[in-house]
Amino acid sequence: MNTDLTRISQQIRFIIEADKLKEILRQTLCSQSRRQENDAEHSWHLCLLVITLAEHSNAPDLDVLRVLKMVVIHDLVEIDAGDTFAYDTARMAGQHDREAIAAERIFGLLPADQAREFRALWDEFEARQTAESKFAAAVDRFQPMLQNCLTQGAAWRSHGVTADRVIARNRHIAEGSAALWAYASRMLDEAISAGFLRHP
Amino acid sequence: MNTDLTRISQQIRFIIEADKLKEILRQTLCSQSRRQENDAEHSWHLCLLVITLAEHSNAPDLDVLRVLKMVVIHDLVEIDAGDTFAYDTARMAGQHDREAIAAERIFGLLPADQAREFRALWDEFEARQTAESKFAAAVDRFQPMLQNCLTQGAAWRSHGVTADRVIARNRHIAEGSAALWAYASRMLDEAISAGFLRHP
Repeated sequence: MNTDLTRISQQIRFIIEADKLKEILRQTLCSQSRRQENDAEHSWHLCLLVITLAEHSNAPDLDVLRVLKMVVIHDLVEIDAGDTFAYDTARMAGQHDREAIAAERIFGLLPADQAREFRALWDEFEARQTAESKFAAAVDRFQPMLQNCLTQGAAWRSHGVTADRVIARNRHIAEGSAALWAYASRMLDEAISAGFLRHP
Repeated sequence: MNTDLTRISQQIRFIIEADKLKEILRQTLCSQSRRQENDAEHSWHLCLLVITLAEHSNAPDLDVLRVLKMVVIHDLVEIDAGDTFAYDTARMAGQHDREAIAAERIFGLLPADQAREFRALWDEFEARQTAESKFAAAVDRFQPMLQNCLTQGAAWRSHGVTADRVIARNRHIAEGSAALWAYASRMLDEAISAGFLRHP
C-alpha cells in the first residue's frame, strides 16, 4: 500500500468511526417528531446556526471556518464518553477526563498531523478562551434552549430544571454574542410566561 | 421591535424551520442501528468529510469555508421537495424544479441579503461548475456509497441497483477529487467481490 493510500484509508477509518455519533441521544427533543435528538443532528444544526448568526459574534473578525470545524467535531468524544445532560451535576464530575480519553482514541485514528489539528480544535473548544470557541460555545448552548422552547420545555420539565439554573448555565452565551444572549433572555422570559420553565 | 431584533428573529425563524430536516429520511442506512439516515445527519457527516478530506481536492486553493456552507445547506430544499433516491429516474425528472421552488420559500425566510447569499450557494452547488461545488458534490456522492458498503449494500440491493449504474452516477467524484474517486473505485471493487453490489 503506498503512503497516499495509507493516509486516505486512515481518514476514511475515522469517518466510519464517526458514524456512531448518529446513535448518541441527547435529552433535547426534535421539534417535529418529538423524539430525542442525536449528536450528529445537533452538530449539523450548530453549523447552520454558525453560518446564519456569525455576524452577531462579539468579535468583528471571527474566523468562521475555525468555528465550523469546532462544532463539527465537538461532540465526537461522546461516542465513547456518552452525552452528559447539562444539568446532571453528578455526571458532570469527571466528564472532561472521560472525554479527554475519548479524544485520544478517536482523533488518534487520523494521520498524526491531523490528529493533532483536531485535538487542538477540541481543546480550544473546551477551554473557551478564544473568540472562536466562545462563539462555538454560544451556539452550543443556545440550540438546546431553542429546542426546549419549541417543545414546551420538555427536557427542562422532565428533569425539573428551573429558570435560575438555565440562566446560570447559559449566560456565558453573552461572551460569544451579546446579541444572541439578548435574544435568548427574551426567549426565556416568554418560556417562563408560558409555563414551560418554572422559577425554583 | 427594532431593526436588529427583526433581523435576528428572521434568522432564528429560518433555524427553526430547518429543524424539519431531521425528519427527512434517505435510502441509506446508518452503519450501527441500520435505521434510515436522515438529511441532517447526512449533512453533518459531509461536513466531517470536507474538513478531513479537503487536502485531496483537485484544487490546491480550495475555499473550504464555502464548501462547508454549501454542504450545510444543500439538502434544506428537501424539507419541501422530499428526498429523491439517486437511482429513481422517474422521480429525478422535475426534481430540480421542485427544489428551486423550495429554495425560494425556505431561504426566503432569511433577511434579504442572506437569502440571496444562501440561494447563490445552493445554485452553485447544483451547477457543479466551481472547484468548491465539485468537491462538495464529490463528498455528497461518496458518503452514501460508503454507508452502502458498511451495510452490505442494503440500499443498492433493496432497489436492485447494479454496479454499472453506481459507477455512472458517481464517477464525477473524480472532478472534485481524483484521489477520492480512486479510493471509491477500490471500495466498489471490494463491494462487488463481497457480493454487496452486482453486475447487471
